[in-house]
Amino acid sequence: MEEQKINDLVNEVMNRIKDAESSNETENNEKNVEKSENKKGGEAKLNLANEVTEFIGTTIGDTIGLVIANVDPQLREMMGIDKKYRSIGIFSARTGAGPQIYAADEAVKASNTEIVKIELPRDTKGGAGHGSLIIFGAEEVSDARRAVQVALDDLERTFGDVYANDAGHLEFQYSARASKALNEAFGAPEGKAFGISVGAPAGIGVIMADVAVKAATIDVVGYASPADGTSLTNESILFFSGDSGAVRQAVVAAREVGLKLLGSLGDKPESVTTPYI
Amino acid sequence: MEEQKINDLVNEVMNRIKDAESSNETENNEKNVEKSENKKGGEAKLNLANEVTEFIGTTIGDTIGLVIANVDPQLREMMGIDKKYRSIGIFSARTGAGPQIYAADEAVKASNTEIVKIELPRDTKGGAGHGSLIIFGAEEVSDARRAVQVALDDLERTFGDVYANDAGHLEFQYSARASKALNEAFGAPEGKAFGISVGAPAGIGVIMADVAVKAATIDVVGYASPADGTSLTNESILFFSGDSGAVRQAVVAAREVGLKLLGSLGDKPESVTTPYI
Amino acid sequence: MEEQKINDLVNEVMNRIKDAESSNETENNEKNVEKSENKKGGEAKLNLANEVTEFIGTTIGDTIGLVIANVDPQLREMMGIDKKYRSIGIFSARTGAGPQIYAADEAVKASNTEIVKIELPRDTKGGAGHGSLIIFGAEEVSDARRAVQVALDDLERTFGDVYANDAGHLEFQYSARASKALNEAFGAPEGKAFGISVGAPAGIGVIMADVAVKAATIDVVGYASPADGTSLTNESILFFSGDSGAVRQAVVAAREVGLKLLGSLGDKPESVTTPYI
Repeated sequence: MEEQKINDLVNEVMNRIKDAESSNETENNEKNVEKSENKKGGEAKLNLANEVTEFIGTTIGDTIGLVIANVDPQLREMMGIDKKYRSIGIFSARTGAGPQIYAADEAVKASNTEIVKIELPRDTKGGAGHGSLIIFGAEEVSDARRAVQVALDDLERTFGDVYANDAGHLEFQYSARASKALNEAFGAPEGKAFGISVGAPAGIGVIMADVAVKAATIDVVGYASPADGTSLTNESILFFSGDSGAVRQAVVAAREVGLKLLGSLGDKPESVTTPYI
Repeated sequence: MEEQKINDLVNEVMNRIKDAESSNETENNEKNVEKSENKKGGEAKLNLANEVTEFIGTTIGDTIGLVIANVDPQLREMMGIDKKYRSIGIFSARTGAGPQIYAADEAVKASNTEIVKIELPRDTKGGAGHGSLIIFGAEEVSDARRAVQVALDDLERTFGDVYANDAGHLEFQYSARASKALNEAFGAPEGKAFGISVGAPAGIGVIMADVAVKAATIDVVGYASPADGTSLTNESILFFSGDSGAVRQAVVAAREVGLKLLGSLGDKPESVTTPYI
Repeated sequence: MEEQKINDLVNEVMNRIKDAESSNETENNEKNVEKSENKKGGEAKLNLANEVTEFIGTTIGDTIGLVIANVDPQLREMMGIDKKYRSIGIFSARTGAGPQIYAADEAVKASNTEIVKIELPRDTKGGAGHGSLIIFGAEEVSDARRAVQVALDDLERTFGDVYANDAGHLEFQYSARASKALNEAFGAPEGKAFGISVGAPAGIGVIMADVAVKAATIDVVGYASPADGTSLTNESILFFSGDSGAVRQAVVAAREVGLKLLGSLGDKPESVTTPYI
């Protein structure tokens, strides 16, 4: 075989490898929220649910849904959970707090449960933001189970306006009618429209907050930054309430600017699933 | 050379690459605790110890062991270390707190030193947990040196029941007789058996805590979660004391469930070294 | 084609791949501060500045410079910024606090602005340290703009004595004359020489602190560690003031030992840009 042919062949192989790798890289950016999704098929999950009665399911963001039918009294006391909740639902994630809290808000509306705990680790697997641990309290395990299932199912939607690239992420959420999870986590007035605008690195979040406030007549409910109101994340967050049209308008304006600014630090930020706002 | 042969050859090469990569990936998951192990041989270490008298050694978890024979008084005061400790031993790691604290506990038993500081950064190199900084105080540098050496040598064992995959990690530790490091760090009653069960993402840790408490008659010494008792990690941790058989039984029960749940989010979690419990 | 030839060929390809990969790995270590640099050319930045008036520029460390000409009063109040600052400059980064604060110190000297906020997230994209959010206050937007531009331009220099490998990082900074940013962030006496020595994992920082104090007659202004004075980072930091020769001498001594110790955990740590001290 001649030298030339060897070289052609080696180059052909190298090109195929490059193609394979570049398609890998696209999947490996900070949007690794999708990584574990669908890794296990429905059958495996069913088997696990049979083996471990506490297991409900997993989804995007390394999120796992769990339930305890009768929490051990010693543990319940250590966790600071009221005795009246015999059962708890657990909604826990490596990546994301906003998507999970908005999903939990829908879950509380759709089930006979209460939010008993929302804790926000510094996480996102090396990214700039939070993970989350949300605990639902219920008197009946069937209610806890239903809350967790509703929340798991809603994450596909609430990850829709999460955008990420290697340099950071943006997040927008909108609810036409805030309920107990949003009130507990962010002080949202219940029954009113409620939105958040999150930017990382934090400086981008500051600009988006300014744009949001100027874009529509909204009530600023809160502002959080690395040293104040976050778990030391590299995010600035605006929380706002108001007329549903105004809240939506503020989100849209902040999103437009945020996408351009985050894009200046890296690739074009892409939605993790499908935008819903 | 015919087209068919080229294709066969290219495919053969691609397969070999895939094999090489998949064995790489196994090493590259969150268990990157092993990464730096053995990178430098014994000879290099000896040379460094000759050049930098403070150097003792490195091991798994990006852990480094160091010693200062005569701590500068200005620095000692800034660090809040008692004057009576002329020498300090330093045991510092990017990945892991439990393994290092359990190893330090053995080191204190085996040397004439005290634990003067245990600090837990939010680390694990992008993972869900802690790193650690442990400082031994001693009157003689030989004692500080011995404590650090014993702790370094014990890490191979205490990383045995650390299990990890891309989605998170589990950790279990067991001591038949808790000493000063476990007392200082976790409030363990000295002289009694003491275990911990750690799960990340935190929801898995909650389930394991419930399983552990129900599996045996143990005294729950503490519970930690992302917002309470951890350094904002994505972990839930149960600390428990009691009869040595019961403590061990609680650990084993929690481990069985934890491995299944963490496995639902990714690959089968594997021990970082060799299980010891 | 004979078996032998196939094997030779496959081996040749594997070797080329290994070469390509090892050169990739060198770029992929913790020094990913450089990653986004120069991703976007000058023209793209000009276009973005035309579209988004708040945009100034980006540089090393995923650092972005931004400005708001007229901060919304509701937002300004939420952020706790004094009314007299109509305009703010924003200097925000995923990786690095020291380099940005030292650059901001020069920016304040060179512009009619004040430091109104320095916040330090736990970040560095999975590394052991901080990110940063620095806000300049100004009465005129041109002043805020100038401060941010000066700070952006100075980062190439202040990243010069940042050294990193896969196991951690070291950072050294030196100013002949500390100004308001260094005073605000670290309590540096204004007008005097001021240095810092940062080591991660934290144990290395402890040794460097001891070496620095012993190497020259300096005033120790502060000491920070994972649980005290950092954002739960895996760093130990010494802050020191004094005669400019002594401060520089302390930095140089700490750097020499630090490089050897960090090198014991991984590859030889390299400067992110070009050393300046």
